[in-house]
Amino acid sequence: MNGAVEFPLDVAELSFAASGDALVRRTVLPSGVRILSEHVPGSRSATLGYWVAVGSRDERGGETPGASESGYGSTHFLEHLLFKGTPTRTAFDIAIAFDSVGGEHNALTAKEHTCYYAKVRDHDLGMAVEVIADMLTSSLLDADEFENERGVILEELAMAEDDPGDVVSQRLFEAVLGDHALGRPIGGTPDAIRQVTRDAVLAHYRENYRPQDLVITAAGAVDHDALVAGVTTALTAAGWDLSATARPVERRHQGDSPVTRGAVLSVETRPIEQVHLLIGFPGLAAADDRRLTMGVLSSILGGGMSSRLFQEIREKRGLAYSVYSFSASYSDAGVFGLYGACSPARAREVADLMLDELRRLATDGITDDELARANGALSGASALALEDSDTRMSRLGRAEITLGEFLDLDESLRRLALVTTDDVQALAADLVARPLSLAAVGAVDDDVFAGFGEDNRSTS
Amino acid sequence: MNGAVEFPLDVAELSFAASGDALVRRTVLPSGVRILSEHVPGSRSATLGYWVAVGSRDERGGETPGASESGYGSTHFLEHLLFKGTPTRTAFDIAIAFDSVGGEHNALTAKEHTCYYAKVRDHDLGMAVEVIADMLTSSLLDADEFENERGVILEELAMAEDDPGDVVSQRLFEAVLGDHALGRPIGGTPDAIRQVTRDAVLAHYRENYRPQDLVITAAGAVDHDALVAGVTTALTAAGWDLSATARPVERRHQGDSPVTRGAVLSVETRPIEQVHLLIGFPGLAAADDRRLTMGVLSSILGGGMSSRLFQEIREKRGLAYSVYSFSASYSDAGVFGLYGACSPARAREVADLMLDELRRLATDGITDDELARANGALSGASALALEDSDTRMSRLGRAEITLGEFLDLDESLRRLALVTTDDVQALAADLVARPLSLAAVGAVDDDVFAGFGEDNRSTS
Repeated sequence: MNGAVEFPLDVAELSFAASGDALVRRTVLPSGVRILSEHVPGSRSATLGYWVAVGSRDERGGETPGASESGYGSTHFLEHLLFKGTPTRTAFDIAIAFDSVGGEHNALTAKEHTCYYAKVRDHDLGMAVEVIADMLTSSLLDADEFENERGVILEELAMAEDDPGDVVSQRLFEAVLGDHALGRPIGGTPDAIRQVTRDAVLAHYRENYRPQDLVITAAGAVDHDALVAGVTTALTAAGWDLSATARPVERRHQGDSPVTRGAVLSVETRPIEQVHLLIGFPGLAAADDRRLTMGVLSSILGGGMSSRLFQEIREKRGLAYSVYSFSASYSDAGVFGLYGACSPARAREVADLMLDELRRLATDGITDDELARANGALSGASALALEDSDTRMSRLGRAEITLGEFLDLDESLRRLALVTTDDVQALAADLVARPLSLAAVGAVDDDVFAGFGEDNRSTS
Repeated sequence: MNGAVEFPLDVAELSFAASGDALVRRTVLPSGVRILSEHVPGSRSATLGYWVAVGSRDERGGETPGASESGYGSTHFLEHLLFKGTPTRTAFDIAIAFDSVGGEHNALTAKEHTCYYAKVRDHDLGMAVEVIADMLTSSLLDADEFENERGVILEELAMAEDDPGDVVSQRLFEAVLGDHALGRPIGGTPDAIRQVTRDAVLAHYRENYRPQDLVITAAGAVDHDALVAGVTTALTAAGWDLSATARPVERRHQGDSPVTRGAVLSVETRPIEQVHLLIGFPGLAAADDRRLTMGVLSSILGGGMSSRLFQEIREKRGLAYSVYSFSASYSDAGVFGLYGACSPARAREVADLMLDELRRLATDGITDDELARANGALSGASALALEDSDTRMSRLGRAEITLGEFLDLDESLRRLALVTTDDVQALAADLVARPLSLAAVGAVDDDVFAGFGEDNRSTS
């Protein structure tokens, strides 16, 4: 293959060779269920994912003022409950199905999707297909289990609240994305979880877990025909009507949506050793043409030991152990950020240094050497990552749910090679001109950051 | 192969087939350098490690009272400094060597060894062999870089101090191992790092980084002869005299050493949401015959979603998000522990429940079903783990440095299948009879745990 392969929602069968010897196949059942596999010759294991293209951003608060947040956190709550039993399998049965074969089995709730996945040896894939299908179609949402799980989720949120890195990240997303639904915490707030009702979670389940919402991806030692047969049998056994004709749900609107809030300073004072700092800007949406340019930019600015942030802040000055940049993208918005953790006495200095490095990219650009290194870094890391069937399984899900097209490694590298030094400088200039937010958690207060980035902040 | 292969220190060449198609080869150079590889057919990448069998337990404090801890933390400090430049490569050169090919490159300091490693694509393995050899043999330990890195390490320690999971773990090790050198924190204390001198680190470097201390292991797309040639060329270029004859340093004494402290209650009150709890006992040394029994025990007690701790504390009662058991082993001592994090109001209840589950194993034993499931869990997880060349590289290092023999997957599974329900019950009974320690970090004080496990604690 040499190019991008589109994934139209109404084409029943697609098949093509991806990089190396891998073969990608895609089946859209008449009911709207989509099944994608990537067969990797020589592999002895497989990773399987059941995806529902609904995440925390899709939640709605309650209708009445007294229960204004009752729906927030319900996506993640439901994800937990799906492990708690069906008419034919208790929670313990589900656990031992995977534990007894040494498989990995978990789920993740994100802002735009939820995924139930497993990594198992080749001969256990059929079991994984069946058990996850049962969980996903036939969960009891038992009322007692619901209350137990409320306690578990409150502990999960308490754990995140005790992690200053998690807290500062949530604060930055709220700062940059403001009232946008993508700015909310994925798991909800403790108050929302204490209030959420089984009815709210059940409504979410009934509304979003249907054939036309479901995408199944698998990679590694996978036989596509057997996968399609296994999924079909399992969903039919669960009572799903796969003979009814439905078109898969449309992919989300692509492109930027306005971010409602301007520049924000968000400081939480805590009596801890380090200050966790995040500087952030509105970033790129997932399908933005500049996403490979963003990869190059972030690699050069804060992607490894040779990156500018690492060199200036850690290597030359010894101010931080951890310092990097990142880019998070969703269908209609994104966040670009710089992270560092340091002692409270040096927090302002580190924040200034991080911002200076981004500005220097915007004013002075990058060298040809840096561009070549970033190309090598991104292509090498991609090749290593694709050795894991996890990465391939996730790539298929992203292609189907978010992008609507599949880029194999060769095509990604071809596009990467087209990025120029000018492209990177232009993107840096665009980013620094956007409203700048700063979030900090640690033994500092707002005064420490007085006037920080005021050129950017005055634009809001 | 069917059995264990011994690794005598004075045998120059060994070669044998491991599970699947992998081929293990081992070369001991006359100078005492040991080189081991595991060739995995079809692999397109490799993981490489340079090991020195010295860790934090080998550090000595200073000789004079005023500098009583000046040597603690020097192993980890040295590990950082080896990234900071040689006569022919700056720190930046070292960073770009790996970043520009998208490789992973890092190091870890443990209690009994230090390892510098890289994961790269097949054609980059020669570069990795050369660059790590240069770092390891020819580090400048520049005085200015030394001061910069002191700051970085202090930030690393501050990060750990802010992580209640890290803090409770260190407290448990101190509680269980007492004055034993294995009880000390690997990175040293902030005070020790503020005091440590370049001379102390340099002395550590000169004393321990010699041909007879060095073990090189690689797995994946590795040609053994090319690896041996590459290592020999790189070490010779660095001025190491590989023609001198030396026997590799003897492996550490195996077997239990007395643990000097009895039962300890160690509580640190912090104003955070969760209490992190660890219950611990002196465990098994690395070469203990019962280590596979320990694997089965820990799998059943706290190894996955179907484990007793998970079922009783999370699934049935919703008291914790994270709860598990673990076993850490060193050449002459070990720690066995139970971990849970929960709300302060439920901390005593969770501690009691965890201990009850261990006691129940000791009094009532396990079922045949549980034994069969643990066998499946351990063998499946091992098979999946061996798909990563990282795991194979580490297994070779452990075989050479700690065990003195190599067990491939088939042999490990054969021995695992010999473990009986009686073995597991006997080990549980042995463990619960040992002095019990409890460490906690969170919004609790000593009173919460008054009389906890007093049957065990009275034995100290």
